[in-house]
Amino acid sequence: MPRIALHWVKSILLTLYQRSAITRDEIVRSTGLNPASVSHALQRLLSSGTIVKVGELKSSGGRRREVLKLNPEAGYFVAVDLERTRIRYALTNLVGDIRYRWEQELDVGMDVAVSNLLRGLEMVQRNLAPWQSSRLLAVGISCPGFIHEDGLVTAVNLGWRRFPLAEKLKEATALPLFLDTACRAYVQAERRLGCAQGCDSCIYIEIGKGIGAGIVTDGDYLDGRDHMAGEFGHITIDPTAADPCNCGKQGCLEAIASSSGMVRQYKDVSGLSAAGKDHVRLSDIFEDARKNEPVALSVIDRASKALALGLSHLIMIFNPALIILGGDLLQGEDLMVPRIKRGVSAHLPDFVRETEIRVTSLGLDIGLKGAAFLAFQNSLTDPKLMNKLCAPLTEEITA
Amino acid sequence: MPRIALHWVKSILLTLYQRSAITRDEIVRSTGLNPASVSHALQRLLSSGTIVKVGELKSSGGRRREVLKLNPEAGYFVAVDLERTRIRYALTNLVGDIRYRWEQELDVGMDVAVSNLLRGLEMVQRNLAPWQSSRLLAVGISCPGFIHEDGLVTAVNLGWRRFPLAEKLKEATALPLFLDTACRAYVQAERRLGCAQGCDSCIYIEIGKGIGAGIVTDGDYLDGRDHMAGEFGHITIDPTAADPCNCGKQGCLEAIASSSGMVRQYKDVSGLSAAGKDHVRLSDIFEDARKNEPVALSVIDRASKALALGLSHLIMIFNPALIILGGDLLQGEDLMVPRIKRGVSAHLPDFVRETEIRVTSLGLDIGLKGAAFLAFQNSLTDPKLMNKLCAPLTEEITA
Repeated sequence: MPRIALHWVKSILLTLYQRSAITRDEIVRSTGLNPASVSHALQRLLSSGTIVKVGELKSSGGRRREVLKLNPEAGYFVAVDLERTRIRYALTNLVGDIRYRWEQELDVGMDVAVSNLLRGLEMVQRNLAPWQSSRLLAVGISCPGFIHEDGLVTAVNLGWRRFPLAEKLKEATALPLFLDTACRAYVQAERRLGCAQGCDSCIYIEIGKGIGAGIVTDGDYLDGRDHMAGEFGHITIDPTAADPCNCGKQGCLEAIASSSGMVRQYKDVSGLSAAGKDHVRLSDIFEDARKNEPVALSVIDRASKALALGLSHLIMIFNPALIILGGDLLQGEDLMVPRIKRGVSAHLPDFVRETEIRVTSLGLDIGLKGAAFLAFQNSLTDPKLMNKLCAPLTEEITA
Repeated sequence: MPRIALHWVKSILLTLYQRSAITRDEIVRSTGLNPASVSHALQRLLSSGTIVKVGELKSSGGRRREVLKLNPEAGYFVAVDLERTRIRYALTNLVGDIRYRWEQELDVGMDVAVSNLLRGLEMVQRNLAPWQSSRLLAVGISCPGFIHEDGLVTAVNLGWRRFPLAEKLKEATALPLFLDTACRAYVQAERRLGCAQGCDSCIYIEIGKGIGAGIVTDGDYLDGRDHMAGEFGHITIDPTAADPCNCGKQGCLEAIASSSGMVRQYKDVSGLSAAGKDHVRLSDIFEDARKNEPVALSVIDRASKALALGLSHLIMIFNPALIILGGDLLQGEDLMVPRIKRGVSAHLPDFVRETEIRVTSLGLDIGLKGAAFLAFQNSLTDPKLMNKLCAPLTEEITA
């Protein structure tokens, strides 16, 4: 029996990841592989149960065409989303559906964070069913900040500077670890599973404790010389503003329009800061604004204006097809998104066709979806992991 | 004798374009072609005189290695640079050296511009020596505004909306015409002949009557969904400013920091506008500033600050290795560049490694160099033009 090339399997599985069901002909077209290679690989993947036949299409000539899809339970990943205030862990199946989840607030400070991380990985692995355990392939991690050439991580908000994250995590798991920056994971999740499918010129903007952009141009992720492209939160959006930013500057977009920036402004203007009260949450501000409370409205107006100006810059510079907004902003979508869209329109010349602006369809799980896809994508290039994924699935005998 | 593949010739000539002299081994390495193909193609190109041997290197083992370069006079191009107020025409040799030039002020209005264009093309072709005439390959045109999918041109400042430029020009020449937007031509010229050689993450900023950006990320030109990326001049750099822009908005970077924007501000502030005097040129403002005239200095300060803010946005978003400034700004390089650099530094957080900012090394001929390279690059994919370029060169017998 002839050898099955890894890149055949890789192309086929990647194609099936994005399309819920597909015919053999469509696989040939979409992968660009020759039909014989596709047939050969499909036969192997069907016999192992990695892909399954879900039905048949009858063409006008009477020929029957099998409709195939991935078996979502053929493999599992651990996905980790390191947000700035919370870590999400999940066991996901092959296509990023979450099968088990565990979350924890993240204490600030490096050592605490690491022991947390180890505990989270342990929790997920402890909660595996036996059949999941044997098909657990890899860990994908979506991480804030940026990752240096040598794999070390700098994430100012976590207090990490050139931190050996991957090395630390190896203490808790023997699985292969794949690490990427949050904004790349987010935009990849949107392209594979969310509202940017088939779109190769799009920008995902995370608006949370910080603000960052994951930018895709001509299908490629924009990385930058030092892997630091997309630091959209630190453009000086208002050179006259005194709003202090974590980066040491003033007037950054992040200082005005991030969730923490909005809370700070609200407390300052309403006098809560001076009174030492610090229990205001972003959701309180949105609630107050819905009751027309003027301070809340002014904070929301200012943040929306700053975001609109920044987005209009991105539109003029990139001429993208789609901008996707996500993060804490989702809690106040009804208040902020219309304001942002109006603001953007006002900043665009009439010769520019408007870019579609929408909120993520993946919600707060976007980081986990992105991390799971990262693990999937990287596993495809590892023959050992592919043989594990394509080992015959035998049905479990239950009582 | 075996056939010589077009792509061998293309790879070799493209490699030789950028390097003034190179050994056979370096050509093999740089093109990635197999050594036999390179040998075969080089033999043909040497025998026709398209490339020439300029010397020999002796290696430590005593082996002699031929050093080769393009014969710059093996082919010629007509290069056209359509600036907003001036058209430059040139006859260039194979590597973009200018052998004849003709320039004219551009009247505003479509028909005038077209008759001008035809006349310019005619002037260049009339001034060819006989040996140049037979080796004239193609016309390259660098054009402001943007080029639609269907080849029509929209250039607001020339009054063109979906204008059939290529079709009109075919009346004046039977040569193949290659058209590209100015900013792409500029940044390509910098990458091939200027200060961005070997740099695949760089941005060229044209600061003239208008402001635009040619952006290269990971070696690829950033084009955008509607070929309208890089409209950097129309970002709203100051939302509070009343400066009117040609695009219909206010507070655009172009309205504050372009040469026409600076002249307008100078006239407004100094009262010359009200007096109906409109003979101020940008160079006058720079002259006045060098004598510490306060109105001139304030206009220059404001424009430099606006440019610095805009450049800092690009640095945060792209994390590029190099930003190159060109256009009318060159006349006041001593005044503006130090101000711009100081301003950029103030807007960058300390975790960002600074991007090198420098002025173009190609001066005002950058558009012609870019247009010539455009013609060269496109000619490489045309077998007819390549056979013309590689026809045997015979020395002219003079009296």
